[in-house]
Amino acid sequence: MTHETIADAGARDLGPGLGEVATHAVELYPAEDPLVLDNGARLGPVRVAYETYGTLNAAGDNAVVLCHALTGDAHAAGHHGDPERRGWWDVLVGPGRAIDTDRFFVVCANLLGGCRGTTGPSDVDPATGEARGLDFPALTVADLVRVQRALLRRLGVRRLAAAVGGSLGGMQVLEWTLQAPEEVDRAVVLCASARLSAQNIALSTAAREGILRDPDFQGGRYPGTGRIPRAGLSAARMLGHVTYVSEEALRRKFDRRLRDGDAVRAPPRDGHDWFAPVFEVEHYLHHQASSFVERFDALSYLYLTRVMDAFAPFEAPDAEERLGRVREAGTRFLVESFTTDWRFGPEHSDHLAAALSGAGVPVERHDVASPWGHDSFLLPIGEHLDLVAGFLAS
Amino acid sequence: MTHETIADAGARDLGPGLGEVATHAVELYPAEDPLVLDNGARLGPVRVAYETYGTLNAAGDNAVVLCHALTGDAHAAGHHGDPERRGWWDVLVGPGRAIDTDRFFVVCANLLGGCRGTTGPSDVDPATGEARGLDFPALTVADLVRVQRALLRRLGVRRLAAAVGGSLGGMQVLEWTLQAPEEVDRAVVLCASARLSAQNIALSTAAREGILRDPDFQGGRYPGTGRIPRAGLSAARMLGHVTYVSEEALRRKFDRRLRDGDAVRAPPRDGHDWFAPVFEVEHYLHHQASSFVERFDALSYLYLTRVMDAFAPFEAPDAEERLGRVREAGTRFLVESFTTDWRFGPEHSDHLAAALSGAGVPVERHDVASPWGHDSFLLPIGEHLDLVAGFLAS
Repeated sequence: MTHETIADAGARDLGPGLGEVATHAVELYPAEDPLVLDNGARLGPVRVAYETYGTLNAAGDNAVVLCHALTGDAHAAGHHGDPERRGWWDVLVGPGRAIDTDRFFVVCANLLGGCRGTTGPSDVDPATGEARGLDFPALTVADLVRVQRALLRRLGVRRLAAAVGGSLGGMQVLEWTLQAPEEVDRAVVLCASARLSAQNIALSTAAREGILRDPDFQGGRYPGTGRIPRAGLSAARMLGHVTYVSEEALRRKFDRRLRDGDAVRAPPRDGHDWFAPVFEVEHYLHHQASSFVERFDALSYLYLTRVMDAFAPFEAPDAEERLGRVREAGTRFLVESFTTDWRFGPEHSDHLAAALSGAGVPVERHDVASPWGHDSFLLPIGEHLDLVAGFLAS
Repeated sequence: MTHETIADAGARDLGPGLGEVATHAVELYPAEDPLVLDNGARLGPVRVAYETYGTLNAAGDNAVVLCHALTGDAHAAGHHGDPERRGWWDVLVGPGRAIDTDRFFVVCANLLGGCRGTTGPSDVDPATGEARGLDFPALTVADLVRVQRALLRRLGVRRLAAAVGGSLGGMQVLEWTLQAPEEVDRAVVLCASARLSAQNIALSTAAREGILRDPDFQGGRYPGTGRIPRAGLSAARMLGHVTYVSEEALRRKFDRRLRDGDAVRAPPRDGHDWFAPVFEVEHYLHHQASSFVERFDALSYLYLTRVMDAFAPFEAPDAEERLGRVREAGTRFLVESFTTDWRFGPEHSDHLAAALSGAGVPVERHDVASPWGHDSFLLPIGEHLDLVAGFLAS
């Protein structure tokens, strides 16, 4: 994703980075011992795609898990053959980088419900030979975390030096500490939220609506038909992407520039070509949408956005008890936001940090200046890289 | 639209308001003397739907034109039989109200390219017996103004006491003064923009994309087929509507409330019902979308949003000359924004007012405190009503 972000990379020399890496897959939760989800449904086997960087130490306690955001995948760092095309968090992860692979054993798994190698709603169910579609069970952030915990146990990890994630990834990190605080030494929660606002939910609802109503969605039975809800998914990506970047980022990068300069300023004859991209920002969004439709699945988009809507751990009846266990476990938090983020802005991180602090959990809270909006957590922003490095070294 | 806005009406007693009113229609620009548009296309006849309130004086100079926003229509004030369902600007227009119909002859016309009685892309072309669809000419804000000027001439108006509009309506007011400053005594420009930002354009692009790609759009030939691009138009309305209201408005009104309370907090079994509205804010958006699809046309939505993208009068080569003519004509401006508007926020009005002031045109500039976002211009916000009344009385 790095090469698709809006900002050009910063000037900092990050060193050579990881070399070629591979995505692995493992089957967890055999049918006879399935995953039991929050809704009571049973799911097994569950295939999990993941990557690892660095080496697990003998004690099994130098692991760092990276929890990915809505449209991420297991390929966080290094490359798959083309050193110019690197994993989505390559700026943060590698030898000598903020998450130092000379020191840590780093693991990143594609999420349950995803579409990049881990079991999700568009995968073929081995039991029926057909995709599950909307029969796939409803999920929670807690379910996403359960699967990653099982993967780490399988890999021999006994304790996490850190769990790190941005956006939905940060929500998983928070949930992980509430679910199993004794497993997590440090938690890095970046531009996340512990309760989506009405506006957050409304924007996700609008994005989902186009997919759900797209005739090619076919009630979720599109996998295997040769048709996918391309219209709905494209519009959803465009809308979603606008929320990932700040107004200032779009102004700096595009303002009102036209690709063909003043030549197209005159109104065209009729409507036939009028709605094709002419502004640079439109070309950018079209590129975002067309590449997204190739790599991401509409059912995964529906499921993982709905998971976010529902997440409100501090409003659960057992919130106080769970927070007490986090305090007892000694888990420490770094909670970062970015000044121009309007998806999960500073107020979301303030709320999240205040709930932790109020329960006596140690929290470092930083609002990092960045013009780039929500996607800042993916970018080589010096203050952000240094905060993560410093927190992990502390 | 008032009854569809997010805020409950304020406590101010606005008086009885207008009684029953009617929408009229007139045919302008006969085929032998057609409207010549900015793109050189000729269009005629042009049917214009309009309403009037109050009485034109003998001098023909007590007229106030109301320019409507993207999804508005000619029915600005009074009612069509049900006194509980009133025109979209009823709070502002009526006997004794800020735009006093005891004093002014008020005119409101549906826009060219619209779908509420005035000629638009989904109307049947009398020459062919078929809807024009995307063959309908591309428009500019200047074209929208030309048609309204022709209507007012037909009605015997010689000079406008004021032109008043919000959002796209305010853009028309600005354009009117640039096109024919000698016709306009006072201009009221509310939460408008003289140059959409990259973010504004991006959000409109995302909204249009779902319509354009909807299989039921049928390349714009859907009128008469019995199918309309309902999926795309619904998603567009949901997205658009979120930009009309502030984050604070959505939080105050809905926050994370569920319609069925805690009963639905547990995750459902699977995805089949998971994406139906459960949060109150989702029910609200679904209501907005379903009523919008009944009253508004997808082609009009495409055309009128694109008109807004292109509007940048101060960047035109003749901007300085036109502004000089506004100064000479003595037209005075009231430029208002609302503090929580994030569609055309205060910075848009600042830019607009600065360009006018910089050219020596008298401008009153106010940023009105309101929690309700862009839609504030439709609401009975006391400071706003008083500003308009005071400016028209000055």
